[in-house]
Amino acid sequence: MTKAMELTLSQQIQNKIDQKTKPVGALGTLEKLAFQIASVQNTLTPELVKPHVVVFAGSHGIAGSGVSAYPSEVTPQMVLNFINGGAAINVFTKQHHIELLLVDAGVDYEFEQTEKLVHAKVNFGTKNFTDQPAMTANECQLCFERGADVVRKVRETGCNVIGFGEMGIGNTSSAALIMSKLLNIPVDECVGKGTGLNDAQVLQKTAVLKKAIENHQDLGHHPLDILQTFGGFEIAMMCGAMLEAAKLNMLILVDGFIASVSYLCAFKVDPLVRNVAIFTHQSDEKGHRILLETLGAEPVLKLGMRLGEGTGCAVAYPILQSAVAFFNEMASFESAGISGKSDGN
Amino acid sequence: MTKAMELTLSQQIQNKIDQKTKPVGALGTLEKLAFQIASVQNTLTPELVKPHVVVFAGSHGIAGSGVSAYPSEVTPQMVLNFINGGAAINVFTKQHHIELLLVDAGVDYEFEQTEKLVHAKVNFGTKNFTDQPAMTANECQLCFERGADVVRKVRETGCNVIGFGEMGIGNTSSAALIMSKLLNIPVDECVGKGTGLNDAQVLQKTAVLKKAIENHQDLGHHPLDILQTFGGFEIAMMCGAMLEAAKLNMLILVDGFIASVSYLCAFKVDPLVRNVAIFTHQSDEKGHRILLETLGAEPVLKLGMRLGEGTGCAVAYPILQSAVAFFNEMASFESAGISGKSDGN
Repeated sequence: MTKAMELTLSQQIQNKIDQKTKPVGALGTLEKLAFQIASVQNTLTPELVKPHVVVFAGSHGIAGSGVSAYPSEVTPQMVLNFINGGAAINVFTKQHHIELLLVDAGVDYEFEQTEKLVHAKVNFGTKNFTDQPAMTANECQLCFERGADVVRKVRETGCNVIGFGEMGIGNTSSAALIMSKLLNIPVDECVGKGTGLNDAQVLQKTAVLKKAIENHQDLGHHPLDILQTFGGFEIAMMCGAMLEAAKLNMLILVDGFIASVSYLCAFKVDPLVRNVAIFTHQSDEKGHRILLETLGAEPVLKLGMRLGEGTGCAVAYPILQSAVAFFNEMASFESAGISGKSDGN
Repeated sequence: MTKAMELTLSQQIQNKIDQKTKPVGALGTLEKLAFQIASVQNTLTPELVKPHVVVFAGSHGIAGSGVSAYPSEVTPQMVLNFINGGAAINVFTKQHHIELLLVDAGVDYEFEQTEKLVHAKVNFGTKNFTDQPAMTANECQLCFERGADVVRKVRETGCNVIGFGEMGIGNTSSAALIMSKLLNIPVDECVGKGTGLNDAQVLQKTAVLKKAIENHQDLGHHPLDILQTFGGFEIAMMCGAMLEAAKLNMLILVDGFIASVSYLCAFKVDPLVRNVAIFTHQSDEKGHRILLETLGAEPVLKLGMRLGEGTGCAVAYPILQSAVAFFNEMASFESAGISGKSDGN
């Protein structure tokens, strides 16, 4: 065993993958996922334990400026739909035995107390950022703290893999501006159809957002200032949650466009979040492809979905399980008595 | 209910999808899958019942011409690995509770009788097609009959969704020539690295295959003649199996490059196979992307896998389950009391 002891864990993980009964590299993305998961868990026998998807919801002042196909009251209505089990994320988390946790980060509605909803409301929706910051510095700070709190409680269940999703009519507008500002990419390239705008409506949305950028031209490049200005209580809280999950060495499942923007903010604060992040799905929302490319992130799925709610995390989860399963369960060439490559003998 | 009765089932299926609590189209590929599955099953409450993956194995005379990175004896060795539960397809079918059926279509090895293997051996491997047809017309016919038999037995279990995979060292060579001949695409564009050739070896493989095409220049364009000439007992048997599955209105899961070539042959015989076929994965094997594009087929997954065995079918299966689950279980806007699009009211 001297030889094995001389190898780093990374080398041992790669060897284990390469000795499985398949050509080297033949399981593609599954091999990369297995390598990442084993590396994060620092083991040759990784496990996915008590998977969770946490959905943060928030209302947006900007929704009053005609940037969405749906009225703002859909945000609380969808939260009630989550509570009642009728939404897409309910279906997909149930399918894969993923625990679903709902968080009111700042919805403009008084929900009744229920075990199914974590009450972390920072305020009843953000301000309209066209002419003022979406939230105060204190509110932004509260988002970070409450996001971290949620993750610590999830970690206490034994969970080591956590997906993040969101609900918030208007939040592709927030996300587009945060992305534009943090990556110095023109707003046009970051703005998309959201919940289903037509081309004329996308132009209108883009005009509103360009105006907003102009009205905050003194804004610097610090991620927290940008988050505070263009907001999204759910976006900021998810950012705080991701940073805490990374600190706790949990695997983070990044959902679609909004979640990737939260990730971007987290990454700007602490680049180590990269090691534990898995990009589960490339959304059909225009800015997302560019964002993932800029991050050098390869999404597991490209299913043309654009729903948020953490649906990408949940639908991709069995692919992660496949990665862990082949790594732990497949035979090796040696154990199965199979001949090697002709040119390798 | 008069209005509903006036709608075709297709319209009713689409309405049901569009009335779910999500923007129209927001579940992307999942919506297309749900539509297809419900259409095939002719119902508004589709079900995936007793899923199976059938793996056909065969030995190839061409493997003696230096076209593969692995020696031909790996074919029976891998079949034994399947029987013993150590291969990738064992892991993934177990993960998703898919029944795995192994079929000896024509492996150059005497397997012991075991319940785990269907003995449908047509011969102990094909002939080397560089200078003679891979199989006789009678052998090709036997492949079709035995493939159909296998599917009929699977159907008797109640199964309504069947995936097909293969194992056969040398079979990317057969598949490349069949594709080239059936689609009139130059051999170079159909030949890839297979199990992991380097660039020089791919050139050598291409040269061997071009020579083989020249040696069969009188060959016409009939799919059965082409199958018989360039063979693969497993490729021909899978083709027969697909045709039978389509007749029985079962959903067919098409795996990677080889399986897609079997599908191509089946499609040339009976274009109706298209309606029930789901392309589960785009392989990293060079010809596969071109083949899928030519077929106008959108693969569910692109995970850079290139293993065969039906692994694409198995890994993609939970995505199909997600499609059926959202279609059957999600709330509608009306049932959840959620506001519609602003511009739609």
